[in-house]
Amino acid sequence: MRSFLENLPLVDHHCHGVVALDLDRPRFEALFSEGHRPVAGCTQFDKPLGLAIRRLCAPALDLPAFADPDAYIARRRALGAEEVNRRLIGDGAVAELLVDTGHRSDAILDPAGLTALTGIPAREIVRIEALMEQVAKTAGSGADLRRGFDALLAERAKGAAGLKSIVAYRVTFDIDQTDPTHGEVEAAGDRWLAALADGSARRLEDPVLIRYALWRAAEHCRAHRYPLQLHVGYGDQDIFMPKCDPTHFTPFIKAVEAWDFAITLLHCWPFIREAAFLAEVFSNVYFDVGVILNYTGPSAPRIMAEAMELAPFYKQLYSSDAFGLAELHYLGARLFREALADVLSGWIAGGLATVADAERIATLIASENARRIYPAA
Amino acid sequence: MRSFLENLPLVDHHCHGVVALDLDRPRFEALFSEGHRPVAGCTQFDKPLGLAIRRLCAPALDLPAFADPDAYIARRRALGAEEVNRRLIGDGAVAELLVDTGHRSDAILDPAGLTALTGIPAREIVRIEALMEQVAKTAGSGADLRRGFDALLAERAKGAAGLKSIVAYRVTFDIDQTDPTHGEVEAAGDRWLAALADGSARRLEDPVLIRYALWRAAEHCRAHRYPLQLHVGYGDQDIFMPKCDPTHFTPFIKAVEAWDFAITLLHCWPFIREAAFLAEVFSNVYFDVGVILNYTGPSAPRIMAEAMELAPFYKQLYSSDAFGLAELHYLGARLFREALADVLSGWIAGGLATVADAERIATLIASENARRIYPAA
Amino acid sequence: MRSFLENLPLVDHHCHGVVALDLDRPRFEALFSEGHRPVAGCTQFDKPLGLAIRRLCAPALDLPAFADPDAYIARRRALGAEEVNRRLIGDGAVAELLVDTGHRSDAILDPAGLTALTGIPAREIVRIEALMEQVAKTAGSGADLRRGFDALLAERAKGAAGLKSIVAYRVTFDIDQTDPTHGEVEAAGDRWLAALADGSARRLEDPVLIRYALWRAAEHCRAHRYPLQLHVGYGDQDIFMPKCDPTHFTPFIKAVEAWDFAITLLHCWPFIREAAFLAEVFSNVYFDVGVILNYTGPSAPRIMAEAMELAPFYKQLYSSDAFGLAELHYLGARLFREALADVLSGWIAGGLATVADAERIATLIASENARRIYPAA
Repeated sequence: MRSFLENLPLVDHHCHGVVALDLDRPRFEALFSEGHRPVAGCTQFDKPLGLAIRRLCAPALDLPAFADPDAYIARRRALGAEEVNRRLIGDGAVAELLVDTGHRSDAILDPAGLTALTGIPAREIVRIEALMEQVAKTAGSGADLRRGFDALLAERAKGAAGLKSIVAYRVTFDIDQTDPTHGEVEAAGDRWLAALADGSARRLEDPVLIRYALWRAAEHCRAHRYPLQLHVGYGDQDIFMPKCDPTHFTPFIKAVEAWDFAITLLHCWPFIREAAFLAEVFSNVYFDVGVILNYTGPSAPRIMAEAMELAPFYKQLYSSDAFGLAELHYLGARLFREALADVLSGWIAGGLATVADAERIATLIASENARRIYPAA
Repeated sequence: MRSFLENLPLVDHHCHGVVALDLDRPRFEALFSEGHRPVAGCTQFDKPLGLAIRRLCAPALDLPAFADPDAYIARRRALGAEEVNRRLIGDGAVAELLVDTGHRSDAILDPAGLTALTGIPAREIVRIEALMEQVAKTAGSGADLRRGFDALLAERAKGAAGLKSIVAYRVTFDIDQTDPTHGEVEAAGDRWLAALADGSARRLEDPVLIRYALWRAAEHCRAHRYPLQLHVGYGDQDIFMPKCDPTHFTPFIKAVEAWDFAITLLHCWPFIREAAFLAEVFSNVYFDVGVILNYTGPSAPRIMAEAMELAPFYKQLYSSDAFGLAELHYLGARLFREALADVLSGWIAGGLATVADAERIATLIASENARRIYPAA
Repeated sequence: MRSFLENLPLVDHHCHGVVALDLDRPRFEALFSEGHRPVAGCTQFDKPLGLAIRRLCAPALDLPAFADPDAYIARRRALGAEEVNRRLIGDGAVAELLVDTGHRSDAILDPAGLTALTGIPAREIVRIEALMEQVAKTAGSGADLRRGFDALLAERAKGAAGLKSIVAYRVTFDIDQTDPTHGEVEAAGDRWLAALADGSARRLEDPVLIRYALWRAAEHCRAHRYPLQLHVGYGDQDIFMPKCDPTHFTPFIKAVEAWDFAITLLHCWPFIREAAFLAEVFSNVYFDVGVILNYTGPSAPRIMAEAMELAPFYKQLYSSDAFGLAELHYLGARLFREALADVLSGWIAGGLATVADAERIATLIASENARRIYPAA
């Protein structure tokens, strides 16, 4: 299975751009930590993801496996960011990139920049909270905000491969999940614009506005027949994890099931089993275990084994969720392939699946499921 | 261990009847999915349970392992439902069936029908919510409903092997867990009967009425010294999973611990560790991992390994939770035996238990624990 | 790795004293169950921890591995409690004990007693709820209670190696996490003292008083630059598990992150992944999987594998959480070493880490992390 998977092209249905500049060690380390404050005497290489970088990325930059962190950073700078990014993203593993452009987009390459660098086709996933925040910069009232959001979303949805919400980050999944009235939305908009003006708010964290954005996004996904991505679970300090279990979002999922567009649950850890349950019982739910394969490095096969327990094979997807570092693109693909090969080889060895079954399963998860639900424009 | 377990009779303490009719492919597939709407281009065979059916059930119907789904369905129809059901349930693995008769009982064989077909003794587990719904059909008032429920429960409890509640399905475990007053119950009954009459309610979803039923059930379990079964976790779209963690039900469990009847937690996934914790700290808690071994197929040993982590060996039980398809009875037994053999063989190989220990543990879980807590009438 | 780990000294950063008296079988069994009521016909040896005692402790008392429980108890009594305690705790595995003195301290050896018996240096961890309960015995008013607690905490904090809270046990983590005002605290103190006087309260379960104790403890940890330990997850019947997930305590953790003292999450099971997540995103969070390695016995490597998935290697600690029985000290150390060796050997065998990496990781977790955050006085 390992050689079959090594030659299997991937569709990375959720990733971000990378930094185009050379990085020193502190800036490099900061890009693979979800925390902010360094701990005295410790380094980000002293964790599972650090081991994976030294094992897999060092050889890709012509160093021996498990090179020392300082040697790695030195080699990275000697090659230059452009060459490093080209090698690590454009190594042939990934056939298409679906790129979330809604997070710190000024600091990283955009989809066109990624394609220019690597030759890999890239399409855009539009983050709806970022659109609402963009409209808020010039909206004079809640009514303005609502109408401006509608217009911008309609325009951006046209060229996109899908839409994305980070509702779990901003207000958790444990909220009223109905579509608010225009009156409620405009009143919430007035309050939020005032809070932005007086500095008491900084970003979109109002559940009424986010619910409005979600329901409009759902309508566009239905019309364009493409997915709505939802951030689930693992993230940074802003996550309030007890309420990021996606089964809290059952009412919304159920309400739009008949609309027949895919809801793709991203990352999911530590709620992998909950995501798999939703994928089994709701026809519209898909999921991946992106980002967490990278962060668990040597334990990535454990994560993949859990993702493969229950869910239909036609409901799983590949993503790297790489942000900032080309290493995270590279590792995402390498660790996914290793981990899935590990699980499927075990099934074949145990007589639990045929080789043909295993190859079909791998192909579905690596690319075919994504191609089916994110159709080319 | 595998051959020891292959010859070890099982008590299936929680299962349902099977459909006695021949099934075409769509109807067959619908019976092994917890969801309702098919996904275009995909089939229920493309999931772990589908692999398990092809691997294990195909040979039981004289086909090669991993036969193609269409060939499987054709062979099933050629043999006829009666022969298939007899072969798959009556293969000698199961020594006794405890049958929940409260779900879609008109569509499937009853306990007597299962015994007639297979020769396996079968006893009834009575579902309390179904009794309340039955009484509601003719009750004229909340007071009528309460008294009618009391009378019907007393009668049905006499011949039963145990009682069962699906409180988690209907109102979750995150409810007030005290015994309501008669006044509260009768008022709730009046409201529910009115809602049934005007069509705004369809089934029992009132927490006051369900709490009343639970406490009366507990009294009968105490008197008859047999278990109260509780559905936990995995199920269909009606489950609101965040509140189906059985540790939410700690107040009820603690309140009846001194009554000294067993509370048997069914399925439990994804709350297996929570169930095992309750089994360790409360003398009255038992559990199984029924249904989920079937749905995880190749990964069933992972589930069993988790169930074996913490819990006392005298607190675990076997169940298939098979409903509708004889395949689910057959796989339940086969996968349980394979998975438990896998775990215990690993312990023996690692020097972590003796062969005698392992055989004793297997026998407790396979049948002895169930025989102890569900005594013959 | 196994021989490297067998010679690696451990710092047990969370344990308790042991009973100095000889024990008969019922009293011995009661000390390794988190429940209270025995189940007819079953024994505590019929669980994973029972297997581990027979496998590992029997040889340490000159019996064959897997000796029969009665033979084990007889041998234990023949050797006498003092010799058993000395052998099992003082076998060279543990270099330092950090001892929680706040639970049933009259029944077990104190830190000095442990050192006298075993020669192992022992320092005290002070449990803040126990201090508040001690002050309540003589306080005449809420104001008295507050001031008395401040004074006693200041005194006891001076000689301690760290402080500990069992907030999760008493009021769960799902509480307001702000520092209450003096007025609120004193009013809560008045109410609690009255309830103690009329017998309606028995111990400290008031969230306002516990929040006050937590914030004062945080100030002392900041001043003394040592950890605040928090009980998480696994415990006895008093635990309300749904709200003991440590991610519920994110607001408190975030509020004190800049104070730069360690918060050490104890046990964590079944919230190991949640603890690892907090350790990744918050610079002040550390954790262990103490107690649960003992209670899972043969499955301890599964637990350790989960603990090693995500968390930085510089954020994990060793503890036994042994209470009452010297066996639990001995097994804690043995199972930790076996389980960590198991995980790291797998990484080396798979080419996922070098031997040097694995040895460094083992040393950090076994002792160096604890030495860094619990500096010698």
